[in-house]
Amino acid sequence: MTRFFFRLDATDGRARTGAIDTPRGTIRTPAFMPVGTAATVKGMMPESVAETGADILLGNTYHLMLRPGAERIERLGGLHRFMNWDGPILTDSGGFQVMSLSDLRKLTEDGVTFKSHIDGSKHFLSPERSMEIQRQLGSDIVMAFDECPALPAPRERVAASMRMSMRWAARSREAFGDRPGHALFGIQQGGLEADLREESAAALKEIGFDGYAVGGLAVGEGQEAMFACLDHAPETLPREAPRYLMGVGKPDDIVGAVKRGIDMMDCVLPSRSGRTGQAWTRRGQVNLKNARHMDDPRPLDEACTCPCCRNYSRAYLHHVHRAGEMIAGMLLTWHNLHYYQELMSGLRAAIAGGRFAAFEAAFHAERAEGDIERL
Amino acid sequence: MTRFFFRLDATDGRARTGAIDTPRGTIRTPAFMPVGTAATVKGMMPESVAETGADILLGNTYHLMLRPGAERIERLGGLHRFMNWDGPILTDSGGFQVMSLSDLRKLTEDGVTFKSHIDGSKHFLSPERSMEIQRQLGSDIVMAFDECPALPAPRERVAASMRMSMRWAARSREAFGDRPGHALFGIQQGGLEADLREESAAALKEIGFDGYAVGGLAVGEGQEAMFACLDHAPETLPREAPRYLMGVGKPDDIVGAVKRGIDMMDCVLPSRSGRTGQAWTRRGQVNLKNARHMDDPRPLDEACTCPCCRNYSRAYLHHVHRAGEMIAGMLLTWHNLHYYQELMSGLRAAIAGGRFAAFEAAFHAERAEGDIERL
Repeated sequence: MTRFFFRLDATDGRARTGAIDTPRGTIRTPAFMPVGTAATVKGMMPESVAETGADILLGNTYHLMLRPGAERIERLGGLHRFMNWDGPILTDSGGFQVMSLSDLRKLTEDGVTFKSHIDGSKHFLSPERSMEIQRQLGSDIVMAFDECPALPAPRERVAASMRMSMRWAARSREAFGDRPGHALFGIQQGGLEADLREESAAALKEIGFDGYAVGGLAVGEGQEAMFACLDHAPETLPREAPRYLMGVGKPDDIVGAVKRGIDMMDCVLPSRSGRTGQAWTRRGQVNLKNARHMDDPRPLDEACTCPCCRNYSRAYLHHVHRAGEMIAGMLLTWHNLHYYQELMSGLRAAIAGGRFAAFEAAFHAERAEGDIERL
Repeated sequence: MTRFFFRLDATDGRARTGAIDTPRGTIRTPAFMPVGTAATVKGMMPESVAETGADILLGNTYHLMLRPGAERIERLGGLHRFMNWDGPILTDSGGFQVMSLSDLRKLTEDGVTFKSHIDGSKHFLSPERSMEIQRQLGSDIVMAFDECPALPAPRERVAASMRMSMRWAARSREAFGDRPGHALFGIQQGGLEADLREESAAALKEIGFDGYAVGGLAVGEGQEAMFACLDHAPETLPREAPRYLMGVGKPDDIVGAVKRGIDMMDCVLPSRSGRTGQAWTRRGQVNLKNARHMDDPRPLDEACTCPCCRNYSRAYLHHVHRAGEMIAGMLLTWHNLHYYQELMSGLRAAIAGGRFAAFEAAFHAERAEGDIERL
């Protein structure tokens, strides 16, 4: 069986490109992972997600444990088979979403007791239980169970939370055990405090993981603060392991994060935006709800090769969105995921070619032109 | 340019199989036409609709004239281009849906004035306006503008309505003019009254159409009454032209209609059912909402070759339907349309092979077995 293995092929400044080999396939990095919360990337057939160029999906432990249940998915042959996705899957630990979505949660050193936002049923998550659930799901990349405060937060709250997350990281490592072909990632915390990030990185390295996430960002601190943290945080993590920035982000967040040494990202944005009539393009965001598209025969982006841009006009996208038709979300999600993967592909090629700075400048210049002018 | 041409290849009893050649492709008959009401077959990419085996789609004049508007679709290059469907499209006349969906309608010999169910705006439909709209849409098969009462209805109401529809049919024919490669179908009315059906057929034949619909059925009369009417009505229409039964139906309605000499049908049922968790299979209807599917690893139908049955379990379909995920409607619609097209393919082969009776018996026997037993 192929082992989990990260290969760094090239660097350009702090930006890195390479690949993660897994038994289920290779993940080209920097990688963007579409989110398949409830065992589906909303509005997409999994074959179509693969067509956009995605090598790996993210699944949400919190949602799946509540519905349909991790034990059920295990009995049915695991998450890959359940949702018809043969490639690698990364699952989060459930910690973040318990804090943001569940009701009546109670947090102790042991773990978190909470009520389901779906049916009010009572559940418990801990490092040990999270490892068990992620094993039941059959996840290829398992995330350590952690906790983090929304930012801004008092330094003492951030420090105490980080230190508990580091104790949970050790318990996660212990509970994960040895599972060849599967990886366990630790999650750095420490908010925007550089010394806490260093303390967290040291604790994680001491435990030892297959990869390291920069956690606790994209929780309200803004891009400037996030980039300031990323100017420092990734470098505190091992160079020879993949670095994953959780829950990020907008295209310009992605470019800035890759510039700062990030290898993996995930975000609901491209799929969620697609369902609300928003498209992401090299010229920035386009709101298809806007009446200016009503008679526009042009595609969203004449340079884009996705099925949405090859076959449909802005007028059509406007119409089907207004009419509440499913195909509006299907086409715009496809376009957005395609655009995100094109961006990642461009970033990888630029880093490999030693021309990241030129790529970044062109990226911002193209966006500055704004959406294609009205006919 | 290919002319519109109907070729009858074989008959078996009153059942017929053949093909309609159009400039946009051949329609194998008996044909089932998926409904693309608002310029999309809900939940399906048009390539996927074609993959199910559909040769032709139906578009709704009433919906399209209100949103996005027929003039707009014409400016954008016609309905085919707008919705990315290269094959033939049949459009209804709008008459039926004005009567069933609009508000505050006023019916006169001239036509119907009504308010949009979408925004309350005022509109007018007449034979002339319906022909204009269907031309603007670029429809390949245009339906004459007609009107019909819900059944049961008093004979005098049915007769008066039918006679006005026949006057409207003559006006439709006149307004349609000569459009090579495009076809105009007349619509027989007369409710369940055999002599009125004959009177209507005579009027239509006198005017002369490229095809003939049996209209005014599937409006509440029940299958037995519908079949009793179909025992007689299709035979009153020209043998050398296609016969279209509008708005039908369930799989057993389809088999019974084909047996009685019908060549074309359309219905929202397979797509609408798919969005509400209902599947149609050779063993009858399956309700995926039912908790008995929650742990069932089997496909909907192990003999079905559609992507839904090849790749997903009943447990998955149950889960995504309960979770309100778009893929539930996408997969079940695909399955249902696939099943319907497989049924049509089976009917065509059976008629061609002179074994319609055996096919019909096997169809009913398979359904009588009921859905696959619980594990």
